[in-house]
Amino acid sequence: MNEALFTANNVWMLVATVLVFVMHLGFSALEAGFVQRKNTVNILFKNAMIIAIGLLTYCLIGFNLMYPGTNAGGFFGFAGFGLNMPAGEAGGIGYADGAYTYYTDFIFQGMFAATAATIVSGAVAERIKLNAFLVFAALFVAISYPITGMWKWGAGWLDAAGFYDFAGSSLVHAVGGWGALAAVLLLGARRGKYTRNGIKPIPGHSMPLAAIGVFLLWFGWFGFNGGSVLSADPVAVSLVFVTTALAASAGAVGAFIVSYSLFKSHDLSMVLNGILGGLVGITAGADVMTPTDAILIGGIAGMVIPVSVVFFDRIKVDDPVGATSVHLVCGVWGTLAVGIFGAKASLAQLWVQFYGTMSIGLFTFVFAFSLMYLLKVTIGIRVSEEDEERGLDVSEHDMEAYEEGTVTEPAYQLSVK
Amino acid sequence: MNEALFTANNVWMLVATVLVFVMHLGFSALEAGFVQRKNTVNILFKNAMIIAIGLLTYCLIGFNLMYPGTNAGGFFGFAGFGLNMPAGEAGGIGYADGAYTYYTDFIFQGMFAATAATIVSGAVAERIKLNAFLVFAALFVAISYPITGMWKWGAGWLDAAGFYDFAGSSLVHAVGGWGALAAVLLLGARRGKYTRNGIKPIPGHSMPLAAIGVFLLWFGWFGFNGGSVLSADPVAVSLVFVTTALAASAGAVGAFIVSYSLFKSHDLSMVLNGILGGLVGITAGADVMTPTDAILIGGIAGMVIPVSVVFFDRIKVDDPVGATSVHLVCGVWGTLAVGIFGAKASLAQLWVQFYGTMSIGLFTFVFAFSLMYLLKVTIGIRVSEEDEERGLDVSEHDMEAYEEGTVTEPAYQLSVK
Amino acid sequence: MNEALFTANNVWMLVATVLVFVMHLGFSALEAGFVQRKNTVNILFKNAMIIAIGLLTYCLIGFNLMYPGTNAGGFFGFAGFGLNMPAGEAGGIGYADGAYTYYTDFIFQGMFAATAATIVSGAVAERIKLNAFLVFAALFVAISYPITGMWKWGAGWLDAAGFYDFAGSSLVHAVGGWGALAAVLLLGARRGKYTRNGIKPIPGHSMPLAAIGVFLLWFGWFGFNGGSVLSADPVAVSLVFVTTALAASAGAVGAFIVSYSLFKSHDLSMVLNGILGGLVGITAGADVMTPTDAILIGGIAGMVIPVSVVFFDRIKVDDPVGATSVHLVCGVWGTLAVGIFGAKASLAQLWVQFYGTMSIGLFTFVFAFSLMYLLKVTIGIRVSEEDEERGLDVSEHDMEAYEEGTVTEPAYQLSVK
Repeated sequence: MNEALFTANNVWMLVATVLVFVMHLGFSALEAGFVQRKNTVNILFKNAMIIAIGLLTYCLIGFNLMYPGTNAGGFFGFAGFGLNMPAGEAGGIGYADGAYTYYTDFIFQGMFAATAATIVSGAVAERIKLNAFLVFAALFVAISYPITGMWKWGAGWLDAAGFYDFAGSSLVHAVGGWGALAAVLLLGARRGKYTRNGIKPIPGHSMPLAAIGVFLLWFGWFGFNGGSVLSADPVAVSLVFVTTALAASAGAVGAFIVSYSLFKSHDLSMVLNGILGGLVGITAGADVMTPTDAILIGGIAGMVIPVSVVFFDRIKVDDPVGATSVHLVCGVWGTLAVGIFGAKASLAQLWVQFYGTMSIGLFTFVFAFSLMYLLKVTIGIRVSEEDEERGLDVSEHDMEAYEEGTVTEPAYQLSVK
Repeated sequence: MNEALFTANNVWMLVATVLVFVMHLGFSALEAGFVQRKNTVNILFKNAMIIAIGLLTYCLIGFNLMYPGTNAGGFFGFAGFGLNMPAGEAGGIGYADGAYTYYTDFIFQGMFAATAATIVSGAVAERIKLNAFLVFAALFVAISYPITGMWKWGAGWLDAAGFYDFAGSSLVHAVGGWGALAAVLLLGARRGKYTRNGIKPIPGHSMPLAAIGVFLLWFGWFGFNGGSVLSADPVAVSLVFVTTALAASAGAVGAFIVSYSLFKSHDLSMVLNGILGGLVGITAGADVMTPTDAILIGGIAGMVIPVSVVFFDRIKVDDPVGATSVHLVCGVWGTLAVGIFGAKASLAQLWVQFYGTMSIGLFTFVFAFSLMYLLKVTIGIRVSEEDEERGLDVSEHDMEAYEEGTVTEPAYQLSVK
Repeated sequence: MNEALFTANNVWMLVATVLVFVMHLGFSALEAGFVQRKNTVNILFKNAMIIAIGLLTYCLIGFNLMYPGTNAGGFFGFAGFGLNMPAGEAGGIGYADGAYTYYTDFIFQGMFAATAATIVSGAVAERIKLNAFLVFAALFVAISYPITGMWKWGAGWLDAAGFYDFAGSSLVHAVGGWGALAAVLLLGARRGKYTRNGIKPIPGHSMPLAAIGVFLLWFGWFGFNGGSVLSADPVAVSLVFVTTALAASAGAVGAFIVSYSLFKSHDLSMVLNGILGGLVGITAGADVMTPTDAILIGGIAGMVIPVSVVFFDRIKVDDPVGATSVHLVCGVWGTLAVGIFGAKASLAQLWVQFYGTMSIGLFTFVFAFSLMYLLKVTIGIRVSEEDEERGLDVSEHDMEAYEEGTVTEPAYQLSVK
C-alpha cells in the first residue's frame, strides 16, 4: 500500500470522526433548545453522559459485537471484550484495505454508536428518571445497536441479502427512532400535554440553541456520510458531500412549503426538523444518488416532517423534539428510497430495503420495549408528578440552567458549609 | 496525476468546504445576538433558508453562470442548467489540474455563494418582510453574485485586466455589503432609531450569541481563505493561515484601540466587528502578503470599524449588525490593499483594484436596488408599524425565541386542536 | 521527501490548528456560562482579546523564545524578533523532517500559546481589572509560557533530562493553572463568597453555554493532542484519538460517581469538569498509553475533580470556573501518570516527571505572582466594591450581555448623539 495515500485516507477518516463527535454537541443543543427551561440541565447532563457511556461500552463490548469478524451472513457474533489491535501491519497500514488503522476504525464507529441513544434522549425528555435512562442508554448502545449493526455492516445476514444502508438511515437513525417510540409508549406523555380541551403546546425554551444544534448536526453530517465512504476516495466523498448538502437544503424547502400551506405560518422548528429529515433521508443512499435524486429524497423527507409531527401528536405520542418524525419516519423513508431512486433502484432492491428496515426495527423495538418495561416495573422510569411540575433540573440536579428564577444551592456547595 | 497527492488535495478542499459551511452558523449566531429578542426567530429562519436556497439555486444556475467555461475575458456566460459532471477522468482526478473533483468544486463554491445573501440579512434585520427577503436573497445569490464572480474567478474581463481578489474581499464581502446598502436605503431605518433627540441605541439581545458567531466565523475563515488556494499546497495554505489569523488579531487590537480612544470604554461589539473587519480585509490578498503586511492590513481594517459604524449611524443608514462597515468598507479596503502591500503592490495594480471593486460594486448595487425597488412597489418590503413594534417573531412566525414572555401557540399546534 | 505524504501531513497539522483554535471558543463559552450574568460581556471581551494578543506576541517574540534553535539543553534562548521563514526547501517541504512547513509550525504552536492565558481568565473572573488582566496575559503568554515551553519542546534542559510531556499537561495546562493560582491568591475571593455563615454558592448564569464550551473543548482536543504527533502518522494519531476520547469519557464517569457519592446529586458542572479533567490528564501521555491506561488515567482525573473543587473552596481559593482543579491538579496528575502507566512507566521516569512539572510550576508561579504583584502595587488589579456589585459589564464595558435588565446605552452610541 502506498504510504502517502494511506495517510491521506486516514486523515480524512479522523476528520470525519471529529465531525461525527460534534454531532453530539448538535444533539445536546437541539434537545436543550426544544425542552422547557426547567429541564435544560437534565437534558445536557444526559447528553454528556451518553457520549461517555457510549464510547466506554463500545470499547468494552459494542465494537466486537458489531464487527465479530466471523459468522458471516449470521445474526450474532462476538469477538471478545475490549480492543485488541491486530499485530504488525494489520493494525496499521495493512488494515481495512489500506484505508485506515484499527484505532481509526474503532473511534469512527464508536462516535456513531452513541448517536442512537442520543436520539432517544430527546423523545423521552422532561419526564424520565435519570438513572433509569442512563441504564437504558448504556444497554441500548452496548447491545442492541451493535447487533442490528452487525446484520449489515458486520457482514451479517442482511448484508448477504443485498440490503443497502450506506451510512445508517436504518442502522443508526431508525434504530434510535424505534427505541424512542418504545420508550415514549411506556413512559406516556408529559402531564398537561393532551387535555380534554385539546393538545396543549409546550414550546421549547430557546430557539437559538435549537438552531445552533441543527447547524452543527448538518456540519457533522458531512463527516457522518462523508466518512462512511471508509476512505478519502475523491469522487465518492465529494459526491456524498453534494447529495448530503442538497438533501438537507431540499428538506428545509420541503418543510417550509408544507408547513406554510398547512399552518399559514413560517414555522422555524419545522424548517429545522426539515433539514434534519432531509439529512436522515439521504443517509442510506448518499453514495448512489445523483444530485437530482438527492433533492427529491430530501425534499420529500422535508415535506413529510410537518405531517408526521401532527400525526404523532394526534395519536398522543408525545415527543418534545420530534425525534420519531425525523429519525424513525425519515430513516425508514431514506432506506426505502434506495430501492426507488439512484443506481440501485429496482423492485427487488425495494423489497430487501423494506424487510431489512422492518427487521431491524422489530428487533430494536422489542429490545427497547422489553428493557424499558423491565426498568418500569423495577426501579421505575417516570419522575413524580411533583418533580415533573418543578422541573427535573431542581429535582434531579439541585441546580438551574440559568441565573434567574429561584436560585437553588448546588449540592456540593451545601456540603461544604 | 499522483493519486495520493490528488487525494490529499481533495481532502483539504472538502475540509475547507465544511469550514465555510459553518460560517453560516457563525452568521446566524452573530446576527441573532445583535438583534432584539423579539426578532430572533426571524433572523434564524432567514439564515436557515438562505443556505438552503443558496445551495439549490447555485446548483440550478449559479455555478454555471459563474464558471461558464467559455467566453473568457467577457461579462457574461452560461453553461446551462444543473450539474453535469464531465465524463471520465475529467470529473475525477483529471479535473482542476488534479487538485479536486468536479463535485468538490461545486460544493466548495456553493458554500461561498450563499454567504453574500447572508451578509444582507443582518443589515435589513428587524423590519423587512420575510417573503420579500427570501425572493431577494434567492435572485441575488442565483444571478447577481455569480455574474460579478465570473468577471474574476470565471476568467472574465476583470481577470483579463489583472484584477486580484484571492478569496473574495470584493467578490463575496463587498458584494454582500453593496447589496445590504441598497436594501437598507430602500427599507429605511428601524422605527425609533433616529429621533429628534438623537440616535437611540438598540442593543442586541445576546452578547454570548454574537461572540460565538464571531469565533465560528474566524474558525470557518481558515477554510474560506485556506480553501481558496484551490489545493493543499503546503507553503501556500500555511501562509494563508498565518496571514488570516494575524489580520484577525490585529483587527481586534485596532478596533480596541480606536474605540477605547473615542468612547473611553471597552466595547465588545467593536472588538468583535474588528476581528471580522480584519478577516474581510486580508481576504483579497491573503496569499500574497507577509505576516507583517497582514498585521498592517488587519490593524487598519480594525481601526476603521468604529469610525465607519459611527459614520453610517450619522448618515442614518441603520444596520443593526454593522454589516456595511465590516463587509463593504473593509471589503473595499482589502481589495485596494493588494495594490498597496505585498507581492503585487504597484500603482498600476492599485488602479485595477480600484476600478475592479468599483465595477463590481456598481453592478451589484444597481441589481440589488432595482430588485428591492421592484419588490417594494409590488409585494412590499416593510412590515407594518404594529408588527415591527410587536416583533417579527410573533407577527411572521407565531412563536417566540425564548420561553419567557407572552407565550404564543405555534401555528401547527393550534391547527391540531 | 515524498510530496504527497508531506501534503497529507501538512493538511492534518492545519486541521489540528483550526481545532485548537476552536478551543478558544470553547473556553469563552465555558467561562461565560460559569460566571454571573453581570460579568458575561467582560469574560467574552477578555477571551476575544487573549487570542488576538496571544497570536501577535507569539509572532513577535514567543515563537523564537520557545524554539530558539540553539542552546540545546539550556534554560533560555532567543532567535530574534518576528517570523523568518527559512529560504527555499527549508521553510517548505524540507522543514520539520518533511512533516509540515515553517508557517504551519508557527500557527499550530501559536494557537497553543494563547491557551495558557485563557486558563487564567476563568479563575480571576468577576473581580479583576480588565486592563491589568490584559497586561498580565500579554506578558504571561509572550515570556513565561515560551520559556518553560522551551525547556521541553524547544530541546531545553528538561528534554535532555528525559522529561516527557506529549501535548502539554504541564507545559500548557499546569502552566495556566499555576498562573491562575498565583493570580487568585493576590486577587482574593469574590466579595460575599466566604462568609461568617459558610461558603456562599455563586452559580454560573448559563449551563447551556458551559456545556457548549466543554463539548467544543473536547472537539478541539482531538487537534490539540492529535496534532501534537507533529505528523499525520496514521497509527500514532489514531491511537491518540482513542486515548483522548476514552480518557474524557472516563473522566465524566469518574466525576459522576464521586460527586454522586459525596453530594447525592447529579451535578452537571462536576461532570463537565470531569470531562475536562480527563482530557488534561491524558494530554502528557496520550501517545504512549493503551486504551485501558487512558481509561484509568482519565477516570482518576475525573474522580479527583469534585474532591479538588471542594478542597480549593475550603482553603478559600475562589475560582469561579474550577480552572485550578481542572488544569493545575489534573495537569500535574497527567504528567506524573506518564511515570506510572504506559510505555514509559518506571520509577526513574516518575522522578523526572515529578521534578519536571515542579520546576515548570515553580518558574511559572514565581513569574505570575511577581508580575501580578507589580500590577497590584502600580495600576491595581481589583475593581472597586461598587463595580464588583454592579458587575463588570456595566462598569468596564457600559453594556449588558442580554436585553433584559436595566438597559445601558453603549458608549459609542452616546457619543454619536
